[in-house]
Amino acid sequence: MKQVLALIASSTLFLGTAHAWDALPQSAPSPQNNPTNAAKVELGKMLFFDPRFSATGTVSCFSCHNVMEGGDDHRSVSIGVHGQEGGRNAPTVWNAAYLSSQFWDGRAATLEDQAVGPVTNPIEMGMADLDVAIDRIRDIPGYATYFAMAFEGEGQVTMENAAKAIAAYERTLITPNSQYDLYVLGDETAMSEQALRGMSTFQAVGCTSCHSGAAFAGPTMPPGTGFFMKFPMFPAQGVMDEYGLLDDQGRYQVTGNEADRHVWRVPTLRNLVYTAPYFHNGAVKSLEEAVQIMARAQLNIDLSPAQTADIVVFLQALTGQFPEQTMPRLPPTPGNLLD
Amino acid sequence: MKQVLALIASSTLFLGTAHAWDALPQSAPSPQNNPTNAAKVELGKMLFFDPRFSATGTVSCFSCHNVMEGGDDHRSVSIGVHGQEGGRNAPTVWNAAYLSSQFWDGRAATLEDQAVGPVTNPIEMGMADLDVAIDRIRDIPGYATYFAMAFEGEGQVTMENAAKAIAAYERTLITPNSQYDLYVLGDETAMSEQALRGMSTFQAVGCTSCHSGAAFAGPTMPPGTGFFMKFPMFPAQGVMDEYGLLDDQGRYQVTGNEADRHVWRVPTLRNLVYTAPYFHNGAVKSLEEAVQIMARAQLNIDLSPAQTADIVVFLQALTGQFPEQTMPRLPPTPGNLLD
Repeated sequence: MKQVLALIASSTLFLGTAHAWDALPQSAPSPQNNPTNAAKVELGKMLFFDPRFSATGTVSCFSCHNVMEGGDDHRSVSIGVHGQEGGRNAPTVWNAAYLSSQFWDGRAATLEDQAVGPVTNPIEMGMADLDVAIDRIRDIPGYATYFAMAFEGEGQVTMENAAKAIAAYERTLITPNSQYDLYVLGDETAMSEQALRGMSTFQAVGCTSCHSGAAFAGPTMPPGTGFFMKFPMFPAQGVMDEYGLLDDQGRYQVTGNEADRHVWRVPTLRNLVYTAPYFHNGAVKSLEEAVQIMARAQLNIDLSPAQTADIVVFLQALTGQFPEQTMPRLPPTPGNLLD
Repeated sequence: MKQVLALIASSTLFLGTAHAWDALPQSAPSPQNNPTNAAKVELGKMLFFDPRFSATGTVSCFSCHNVMEGGDDHRSVSIGVHGQEGGRNAPTVWNAAYLSSQFWDGRAATLEDQAVGPVTNPIEMGMADLDVAIDRIRDIPGYATYFAMAFEGEGQVTMENAAKAIAAYERTLITPNSQYDLYVLGDETAMSEQALRGMSTFQAVGCTSCHSGAAFAGPTMPPGTGFFMKFPMFPAQGVMDEYGLLDDQGRYQVTGNEADRHVWRVPTLRNLVYTAPYFHNGAVKSLEEAVQIMARAQLNIDLSPAQTADIVVFLQALTGQFPEQTMPRLPPTPGNLLD
């Protein structure tokens, strides 16, 4: 029992009230039906970076989830095959392993489910269907060996295995050891005075009621149980029109339930320094604007300039350490692959 | 003098006649006005992978020159911003450091000159002009430090420095130690019997009259002095129409000289396993077809199936060792960058 308490004390810290501040673990757990191994992660990295998974051979997971930067694509909304624009801002893939549902509207329960979505989306990777997509990968002879190594005994080149491999790779995309994490783990000098003030304000005004947990995306929940919230709660604040934030119906488009209109999965707040522009439509350019809009729309308060600045500095302290990654080597392309 | 002779003997080997077989050196030399250093290579890698260098923020050098595979883009012709198709097959960036001029038509003298071309090409990266392009990079505050480190004393964020950095990175993209290289350097077991037969045939029928040198792209020449050749030399061989190989006027489009009609820079033959489909328009799908077309069009001979197969195996033995590379970390994007 003492050990358990010690573990809790080492990974959380109580600041003022009872809110628990969680540090990001150094590694993400893998589900029972997709245990992580090195060969699977390597295969997943290959597939993540492979543009041959798209109709034109030009769009990969990496195209919209740039893991050399913030895990998104620098744009308000993404561009897929044939120059087509999507309707939403690419969510970061960094620390997506800690989200209990995927996509802005939570329509995928797991990273495995999420991975196959964009492949057949006509404005993303544009494959006719999942059979066509996995046939493309089968037509690259070099891949067979890697699937065999990644999935011992059942290493067929299937879309299910491809999705599992990509998910296994994505579970390595975590960014621990931010200033915030170091502080929460006991290094009292890790955050600046201003960041600490911002941390207090962030909690005091109520941001933590949604942005809790290690990823600041809500409490830990079983996979598939999304942590959703209506946005805006207080729409009459004048900013909704300016940024077009009510144009998208959110989770309602998935469920058709009136209660899900303008409901969204609560996004992570880690590495926001890297993921501008912000919000589901990428209409908000700066962290300052983002913080002020959230305070008005969700908490019905106006933050002072000083409070806003403090919270921004606190959010900057959530920038983690990005692991050094080697580039994958992709197997050669047969000349008739894209025919 | 003995030392000089020993050096020559160790890097070349004489097979039958006087043709010199050159091994690919382990590193490429840098020009006097752009000496390589580690910080410059790292900056160049960042810029090579940075899609923010394009109008839409979606196309980087890497998009068409996939260094995780063959240094090209798997397609017949490339796709740039807004889904636009180009007119030519992306040449590989691997070992481009050994070419004395760049692009299919040799319109750039150096890697530095080449690097800026696609940035303002309206169907490639689509920037309005080079000033707009470098302003985009200047607007990413994190880059300033890397330019300062790469170019001591004169580390401004300029397009000239950006091009120098990209070229310095590209000079690290070389693939030595192919079976062929090991053989030429003295390991008599490095190539198969069939590859050796193919090597003999390759020389005997005359392929080496153009495809000589370490990159199999012609003799060593001063930078800017392209090694050009008319293609086809013997057009009445029936295959030109089938593959559309006369649709593009080649170097004539650069110079306007009649003598340059259907004249091309001789391309490298290294790593062909990775760079299908082939030829300037990417119309030729397999190495077998490529070898047979070249024999007809340039040498006016028909190769037997056995000769063709031998040469293909020889060409496969030109597949080198690709260096392991770490992914660059790109500096964060301000939210209004693409406005």
